[in-house]
Amino acid sequence: MANTNDFFVSAPGKAILHGEHAVVHGKVALAVSLNLRTYLRLETTTTGKVCINLPNIDTFLCWNLTELKQLLPYSSKGEEMKRLDPELVQRLREFVGVTNGNLDTCNMATLSFLYLYLSLFGSSELPSLTLSVWSELPTGAGLGSSAAYSVCLAAALLSARGAIPTPLKEWDHTGRWCQEDLELINIHMVLYFPSVPLLRILLTNTKVPRSTKVLVARVKDKINKFPSIMTPVLDSVDAVSCTCEKVLSEMTSEPITGEHYNILEELIDINQHHLNVMGVGHPALDTLCRVTLTRGLHSKLTGAGGGGCGITLLRPETDSVVVQSTVQDLRDCGFDCWETSIGGPGVQQHAPLSVKEEVLEILNRY
Amino acid sequence: MANTNDFFVSAPGKAILHGEHAVVHGKVALAVSLNLRTYLRLETTTTGKVCINLPNIDTFLCWNLTELKQLLPYSSKGEEMKRLDPELVQRLREFVGVTNGNLDTCNMATLSFLYLYLSLFGSSELPSLTLSVWSELPTGAGLGSSAAYSVCLAAALLSARGAIPTPLKEWDHTGRWCQEDLELINIHMVLYFPSVPLLRILLTNTKVPRSTKVLVARVKDKINKFPSIMTPVLDSVDAVSCTCEKVLSEMTSEPITGEHYNILEELIDINQHHLNVMGVGHPALDTLCRVTLTRGLHSKLTGAGGGGCGITLLRPETDSVVVQSTVQDLRDCGFDCWETSIGGPGVQQHAPLSVKEEVLEILNRY
Repeated sequence: MANTNDFFVSAPGKAILHGEHAVVHGKVALAVSLNLRTYLRLETTTTGKVCINLPNIDTFLCWNLTELKQLLPYSSKGEEMKRLDPELVQRLREFVGVTNGNLDTCNMATLSFLYLYLSLFGSSELPSLTLSVWSELPTGAGLGSSAAYSVCLAAALLSARGAIPTPLKEWDHTGRWCQEDLELINIHMVLYFPSVPLLRILLTNTKVPRSTKVLVARVKDKINKFPSIMTPVLDSVDAVSCTCEKVLSEMTSEPITGEHYNILEELIDINQHHLNVMGVGHPALDTLCRVTLTRGLHSKLTGAGGGGCGITLLRPETDSVVVQSTVQDLRDCGFDCWETSIGGPGVQQHAPLSVKEEVLEILNRY
Repeated sequence: MANTNDFFVSAPGKAILHGEHAVVHGKVALAVSLNLRTYLRLETTTTGKVCINLPNIDTFLCWNLTELKQLLPYSSKGEEMKRLDPELVQRLREFVGVTNGNLDTCNMATLSFLYLYLSLFGSSELPSLTLSVWSELPTGAGLGSSAAYSVCLAAALLSARGAIPTPLKEWDHTGRWCQEDLELINIHMVLYFPSVPLLRILLTNTKVPRSTKVLVARVKDKINKFPSIMTPVLDSVDAVSCTCEKVLSEMTSEPITGEHYNILEELIDINQHHLNVMGVGHPALDTLCRVTLTRGLHSKLTGAGGGGCGITLLRPETDSVVVQSTVQDLRDCGFDCWETSIGGPGVQQHAPLSVKEEVLEILNRY
């Protein structure tokens, strides 16, 4: 059972609906919240230890408060968090044992936590606590899993420090912070999501590995090789993003019609072809599009392409039997596939009962 | 065996390499000669009859010269052929029994022949002759089969009338007319093909029926619905046609390199995606592209799309085993498929020995 003193928070992933790659060349991109969420449980303890449990990346670490105190004196105040303190970062790198070179996911997650923890609590008493994080998002798939992790960390630690209020009202399932507090939480992340209705989607991970850097370079080379052909394609992608944003905004202010969905589907198809023209398609993504189209569903890659993830729009009337069959077809192709939604809530505090049972079970394991 | 007095002529089909549909909206289109040819054999006889044999469309007709003479007096001279004589057309429609309504392929072919025959010979003695035509082109597939038929007819009858010379020199296999004579032959057809090297291709007929009119309307609707998205796509298609024409022209004046072929393949892929954006793709065409790509070959639709025909570029180094396997794969999809070339010769006279054996066999059957 959850301790009533436990603090639960969750943050969504992000998906690029339109404009990936074009954004590198000065065009509009349309990012939306993805309702595959990262959940964090913060438990205040009396063990004299600080523990983090990150089961997604097999990371389970504990430090004695006495160890951590040696990293102090540290004189930062909450307001000074806006600038990254290179001295603290260096001290933490030494502490963790990664003084130079690139950081892997585990080290990055550890450093982020310790940095936030020490900058927030360094000027007072260091609290003893256990922090567990579980994400529904695949890591490294361009779906904003590290941003969601950082947002959860910041929301939990700022609340524990008393720097922002806990927004959950008694009897409510979830609570959301006001704009000012959100800005403090999001301080290092620009998480601007436009006004978007809740849209059901399938998110598919083709699991084809790719390098974003290589793909970005490929698009750039193609623009240099065929400027007269590629420049209008970027203009067209830009117009797709703008048209889509307009339709989504209409859908939040007007009654939603089938024609709204028809247009969203057409835009998905157009942009998927454009991304192929840019050279960031992949046979696995073609398969995704073909398999879903046999069920009348429209898909496109999201993010860097060349493999990676794709999204499939579900219509309100799409029967759950069709959804389940499509998910099965895609899994039969060797893909991971989730039924989820975009345009859902941002970071929020949860009453323990409003956390999905399977997530609660994982978070309470530690 | 072929009679040495027999006159053989052939004319190529045409394929649109780039710019189909965009051409309707004021953009450049790139049409090239397609080396699936229409062959004509003209035999002067002493039977007092005029016979045409068109085995492709099961049309075998004979008229007595006395019958045809009744359609005269007709005072036209060769030079006046430039204008269509509506009175003669009307008289021929009555003679053939199609006074109003649309003409089917058979009636159209018959009327074209009789019109040309009577306008050329009407002012002199009507000659007794048998004319047989066999085409390698599928009819009604947008590959210029009626233009090739008309060009063969005009070349043969103008030569028989003595209005143009017979260009075949003794010992040569084929002969070609000079520009001035070609203009007379092509009088009703604008058959301008740009400077193009001979390129090996596969031509595939998906046999999916489609209406050019419906497809043209579909593109127009899409432009009206999404002008900011579609206008740049047409600009990009235009640039594809121009880039392709430039590369093809380089290939006729410089040593041909692998990079020339790489660019031709990239342009094919880009335009195929653009045609999909315009809404004139079809799952059968996707299949064509996918099947050929598994062999490293690049394909696009040619013509109206929505089914119909596609072309696949073969590289000089593409092994005949690969070609044969690809042809078989495509036939296994239910498609017709020919190995042929584009950029080949226009209308030409043939020595009987230079006509392919299987074509000669068909033409000599009548």
